[in-house]
Order: sequence, then structure tokens, then C-alpha cells
Amino acid sequence: MRKIVVIGAGAAGMAAATRARRTDPRASITVFEATSEFARGTCSLAYYVSGEIPSAEALLAVNRQELKERGIDLQLDTPVTAIDPVQRTVKISRQTIPYDRLVVGLGSRSRRIPVVNFANQEHPRLWSLKTVKDACHIKNQLELLKTRRIAIVGGGYVGLEVAEALNRQGCEVTIFHRQPTLMRLRPFCHASIVSLLKSRGVRVELEAEVSLVDPDSRDHTLSWKNSRDKRYSEGFDAVAACPGIVPQTELLVQAGARLGPSGGVQVSLRGETSVDNIYAAGDGVELPNPKGGGSRTVALATAAARLGRVCGENAAGGSRQLGTLHACLALRLFDTQVATVGHPGDWEQSESLEVAFGNSDAPFHARREGRCLFFLEPRSRRLVGAQFVGPQASNLADLASLAMEKNMTLDDLQDLDYSYTPPLSALWHPFYLASRQAERDLRHAKN
Amino acid sequence: MRKIVVIGAGAAGMAAATRARRTDPRASITVFEATSEFARGTCSLAYYVSGEIPSAEALLAVNRQELKERGIDLQLDTPVTAIDPVQRTVKISRQTIPYDRLVVGLGSRSRRIPVVNFANQEHPRLWSLKTVKDACHIKNQLELLKTRRIAIVGGGYVGLEVAEALNRQGCEVTIFHRQPTLMRLRPFCHASIVSLLKSRGVRVELEAEVSLVDPDSRDHTLSWKNSRDKRYSEGFDAVAACPGIVPQTELLVQAGARLGPSGGVQVSLRGETSVDNIYAAGDGVELPNPKGGGSRTVALATAAARLGRVCGENAAGGSRQLGTLHACLALRLFDTQVATVGHPGDWEQSESLEVAFGNSDAPFHARREGRCLFFLEPRSRRLVGAQFVGPQASNLADLASLAMEKNMTLDDLQDLDYSYTPPLSALWHPFYLASRQAERDLRHAKN
Repeated sequence: MRKIVVIGAGAAGMAAATRARRTDPRASITVFEATSEFARGTCSLAYYVSGEIPSAEALLAVNRQELKERGIDLQLDTPVTAIDPVQRTVKISRQTIPYDRLVVGLGSRSRRIPVVNFANQEHPRLWSLKTVKDACHIKNQLELLKTRRIAIVGGGYVGLEVAEALNRQGCEVTIFHRQPTLMRLRPFCHASIVSLLKSRGVRVELEAEVSLVDPDSRDHTLSWKNSRDKRYSEGFDAVAACPGIVPQTELLVQAGARLGPSGGVQVSLRGETSVDNIYAAGDGVELPNPKGGGSRTVALATAAARLGRVCGENAAGGSRQLGTLHACLALRLFDTQVATVGHPGDWEQSESLEVAFGNSDAPFHARREGRCLFFLEPRSRRLVGAQFVGPQASNLADLASLAMEKNMTLDDLQDLDYSYTPPLSALWHPFYLASRQAERDLRHAKN
Repeated sequence: MRKIVVIGAGAAGMAAATRARRTDPRASITVFEATSEFARGTCSLAYYVSGEIPSAEALLAVNRQELKERGIDLQLDTPVTAIDPVQRTVKISRQTIPYDRLVVGLGSRSRRIPVVNFANQEHPRLWSLKTVKDACHIKNQLELLKTRRIAIVGGGYVGLEVAEALNRQGCEVTIFHRQPTLMRLRPFCHASIVSLLKSRGVRVELEAEVSLVDPDSRDHTLSWKNSRDKRYSEGFDAVAACPGIVPQTELLVQAGARLGPSGGVQVSLRGETSVDNIYAAGDGVELPNPKGGGSRTVALATAAARLGRVCGENAAGGSRQLGTLHACLALRLFDTQVATVGHPGDWEQSESLEVAFGNSDAPFHARREGRCLFFLEPRSRRLVGAQFVGPQASNLADLASLAMEKNMTLDDLQDLDYSYTPPLSALWHPFYLASRQAERDLRHAKN
């Protein structure tokens, strides 16, 4: 009987365990999770903070009974302290557990922010949002605060989710972001997001480098400098840290796993690390890009689950290879949506094409106004990424992701069958518009 | 200078004219339209009847001034009575107009319904909805009616659009449909639509064969029999005929064009008819299927515009070939959406796979509940069609259309990157669920 051990009960680990079970109905499958949380809906945390998801129980994707019925042995509060890849064992306090195949759900930790006097970055009014415990803590703290001026450090998609959640809870929110645009959006898509945030009372400080956070100081909670090196200091009731993540690779590095150039554990498209019989998936791994270019990390639950499934299947004797991770990401932002597809590294080496859509006079179409930005490989005009803002952004991102998977060029997007009905779609599909606009630009360039 | 003549200012004709202009900036381009309407948004007519589009002007996709500026000569109220393909001329009352290339926007007419004493099917309380004039007539009639009991003959997508529009105008609507399901939906998707219609007060009579319509009789306006041959007769204030369409091919048949097996004018993927220098697009043409199988008609404005563009480009000296018409069609139905992709003929020769999605406990997911039915080519499991009901149906149809264009199989749909965020998407994308369910079914079949 095959012994499969899974470390971590997050998106990657749970996907690996359930897929392994489906692949080999007889294998012994044990999941060791360091905390008391499992299968937490990380993507849902902000919506629990906002009050839209009413109970913390609704955050769990599966319950313990279901896992038991599937014959998956879940051990909570059981941190694995070491892996011995030669003996093929993992160490848990004083116990040594053997495995045939090991799958590591390799998480991440928040990037450090410069906090005064708090080596471990823990303070009741310094918030992060990676666990259900974090979310509950924020909700409890909100009850205690008399005034609710909150600083958010980091304007990536998590920062934006937290900003909206706290705004919905009546907080006065300021986002501090180091980059010139939120979520690495190009100005064409970024402008309307910033207007939207402002109209909802969210203040945005761009190119703001936070130099010191002091949660205990009411007047100088946050110190930062702007792009012209001007220094500021301001009081807040709490600080939410959403500074992005770094791969948490220690356990696998100690076991001898090789790291990739971005600092994640290097795995193959089959989820194999450089160590025999050890697979890994999650925010902490780094993958080759089957469509060419360097290896990359994708810190998304969807990616963790996809690679986790591949790891689980292969660990259980199956044979599966991952397709391409296009990093397809969507966000609701108040009454609109923001979505991006592709990797910032690829975007930078691309040509971009800006398209506004749905801005016709008819009343339905005006409601569907939005903006797309397509990233194209310079000569081939192959689609390598996109940014969308507008009411259909998430669906357009899915469509772009599929087009990228099939190596489609901008020209290929012109002659496709899209549905059209006035209450649901713009008269010209944004992909058609993009393709036509590119054709026009090309003709002008030739003349 | 190339002389391009276009007959018909509907979706196909207007697309051909504007594309021809872009392809050859110097060509002479004249459009002859039999009626006083042009570039009418046929897809918007029902939403004008419902009152959601407030003015008839908003129904026009372009205005006359724009056409003039682009150098397109539009002649309204100018029916072409004959084509001489040898002399390359068209006849307009007593004038003979020469052409180098002719593009015919080949429309359709409504299928006849059995009306008493009205050879030309015209009566103020017998409605159809193909033109702006029709829509205005319905709105005027609604003002005049004291009671508003309306029978709709035909439960295709136009019948459903009209049913909702009249329901929104306070009418008591009954749909009479010959088939056992509306819109050729499979029972899995059909059931929830029928419940929805009933909950909104729309009565649905299925397998109801209308045998006589007498708009002047208040008590026996509509006679029909059901599937058990039982006969009924009932009074209505008006009858809306939405019985589907038949290709209007006379003009081209007289010019010698060959018809296809479904009764449309046979054209190539380049839009060429069997007559030299004559192209055609629209509801009245029939196209080969580049993915194999017989030729087919697609009576959708989107298809008319796509093939119209191909005709316009080729007529102007360009070289373009149409891709596949997947007949991607979406409909808003009250607070949900219905969409279908593919051709009923292909559906019938397929295996089908039923998937319910989004029915998880979390509050966001419940809101996104829906149903998909996938049609698969039996051995290859290539996707050849789909039906969707639910809040994202139109976007799922676009995604399915793209997958069909790229010959994707159900297995290919499993390992794709979809965006996920709780407020916008179900935890598992319906395509992933379908693929996984198929895998499970297959394993059960093997055991």
C-alpha cells in the first residue's frame, strides 16, 4: 500500500490529497497541517471582513467529515519540523513518519514591513490577512476601535480587497503603494480605478515608500516618503499590511531541494522537486514556462490547486503534466471589476494595445463600459497578457486566458463567434475591437 | 475605380459596405435598401418594446452622416427588382445600375402561421418583430388595447425576448410552442426556465400546434391542439408571431445562384455564391462547415455581420475566409441568462454531459447557481455545443465558442486557468467540473 504524506492543508495540499485519493483508492493519505485551519477559503477572507460572508464556517471549502469519508487523515496543529529524503520520513515533534511519496503544499509569508520594536511583526493593531484567525482578529479589533482610520500598506489585489472590505465596514481607508500604479495596472486601466476608489472615499498614496510603522503611536503611526523624497508622518488607528509575499522554502531547502532564480523551490511541470519522491505546489514554488521564457512563481490559490492536483495524481502513481499558468486574476472593486492575465515580466517585454469598449449611446451599452489593455509579443502578435477594467472584466480574463493557452494572436481574435444581446454585451466584443484597432494602427504605420 | 453594389442595409449589408470601404478607400460603394430602415439594431427591438431602450433612434448602430463621411452612398426605399449577372447590373425601377462586385445582404421572412382570411398576414393585432416599424406598431397597439392578453406563437429565443418585453409592459402572456422544450433546450436546462417564466406570470403551452389564428375573433383568436390531439380555442387581444424564419432567396435564385440542402443560397467561406462576382451573407445563406459535416444556415445578426465583413473585404479586392460559425447565442431572461452554442443538428449526434455549478453553501456562490449541458462528439470527446442557464450563461457561451473554435476536448478544459474571486465566480469553474464529472463517469463505466 502506497504511503502518501502531504504537508500543509491549504489550497495546494488539499487539492493534492483529494486528487491522490481519486487516483489511488487504496493509498494511505495523511495530511499534516501546522495550524488548526484547513481548506480555508483564503480568497474569501476579505469578504468575511466586509461582512458579506456572514460566518467563519462558510470560509471552509470542505468539512472534516467529508475528508474522513474519503479516507484522508487530516492531522491539525501538527507541524512537520524536518524531512529526511534518504530515509523517506518526516519528523513531527518526537515522531518519525515514513512516506513513499511526499507532497509539500509550499506556502508563503508576508514580506516584512518596517515595524518599530516588533521583531516578530505582531501587534493587535498591525493586521495581516492570510488566515481565518487574521480575519477574525480584524473583525474583533474593528469592534474595539473608537475611530477607524486605517492605513493599508500595499496596493496589490489583496490590498484592494482589504481596502474595499474595510470601507464597507465604515473605515476611513488610505492605501500606501510603492509603485506608481495599483496592481501593476497600466495608466489606461489604472485611471478609472483610482477615480472609483476616491469616489468611494478611499485615499490612495502612490509611489509612497513606507519607512516606519509604529502601531503604538497615535500621531506617528506611519512614516513614509513620496517620489520626490518628501517625508511624512501620520496617525492611524490600525495598519493593515498587504505587502505581497515571499516563498516559505526552508523545510524543502533543508531537505536539499533546489531553488529557482526567483527564490521559489524549483519544480517541474509534473510537480517534482529536485529531490526524489518529493513534489511541491503553492505560492512557494517556481515553475518552468512551457510557452518559453524563464521560470516563474504564481501566488494564486487557483494555481496552487491546479499544481496541487498534478502533484497528487503523480504521487499516487498517475501521470499528469501541468499546462501553462497564465496567472488569471479577477477582483470585484465596488461596482466594477478588475482583472489581469499574464506575468508582469512578460508584459514588460510586450507591445500593448489599449481599447475602450461599450461606450456607445444606447442605454444598455453605457452600463457595460470598460477598458482593455492587451499585451502582445512584438513580432508574432501572440497574446501574452491583458488587463481589464469594467463590468465584465473577470469573464474577459477567462477568455484571454483560454486564448493565450491556445497561442492565439490578435488576428485570431477578430473572426470568433461571440454572443450578442443588448442587455448583456457591448455591440462589438472588446476582442474584436482590439483586433480591428490593431489592424488600423498597422495600416497607419505602413502609410 | 471598382464599383461595389450592396443590396440590403441590414447587419450583413452594412458590415460588407463598411469593410469594403476600409479595404479599398477608392472604390465606389452604393447600398440599395428596399425599406426606409438601415443598420437597425434588430437585436435591440424587443428592448425597445419593453421600454428599456427609450427611443427608436437608439436602435440605429450608425447614423446616415457617418456613412456619408465614409463615402458610402446609401439609397433608402430603393428595392432592387432584378440582377443581371452577365451584364453585371442591378435593376431599380426603370434604372439599370452597373457593378463590378455585388454583395447581397440576404434576409429572411417569418415562417407563415395559419391566419384566417389574411393572405398577406397583415392585421393590426397580428404582430411580428423584424423591423423598427414593427416595434413601433406594437408599442402603439399596446396603448390602444384595453386588456392585454397576448398569445406568442413560437418559443425560440425571439419568442422569449418578446414574452419578457410584453410581460414588462404589463401584458398577460402565453407562449405557444410546437416543440417539447423552448429554444431546443434539453430538459436539464429547460426545467428552470419554465419555472422562471411561470413565476413571472408567463404561461407556457408546449407541444402546442397552432392550427388557426383569427385576430378579429375576440373569443377564438387562437386555435391549437396539444400532443394528445386535444383541440382548444381561446381569446386573446393580440397575437405576436415569432415562428422562426425562412431564407428570402428569390432575387439570387433568379440570378442563377445555387441553393443548398437547407434552402439557403449556398456560399463559400469566402462569401461567394455560385454566380461570378456575386457575394452573399445573412439569414438567407447556407455555409459549408469547415470543421466537417453538412452545410448550415445561421440566422443571427452576429453571423450576418461576420460573413458580411468577409464579403465586403473580398468584393473590394481583399482576401479573407470565414472561420467557423458556432451559432453562439445569449439571451437575458428576467434575472437570469440563457445561452446556446452549436447547431441543433450536431447536438443530436452527440453525447451530452449535464453539470450543475455554484450550488455551494457560501452566500456568493448560491447567487451564481447555474446549469450547463455540454455536447460532445462521441469518441473524440471534442466539444460541439453547449447549453447554459444561469447568471453567467452568456460569458460561458463565449468561452465554449472559443474552445470549439480551437477543437478542444472535454479533457482540455480541465487544466485551464480561470479567474476566481468569491463575489464573481463559483469555486469550481463549470468547465472544470464538467471535465471532472466526465472523468468520473468514464471510470464508473470502466468498472
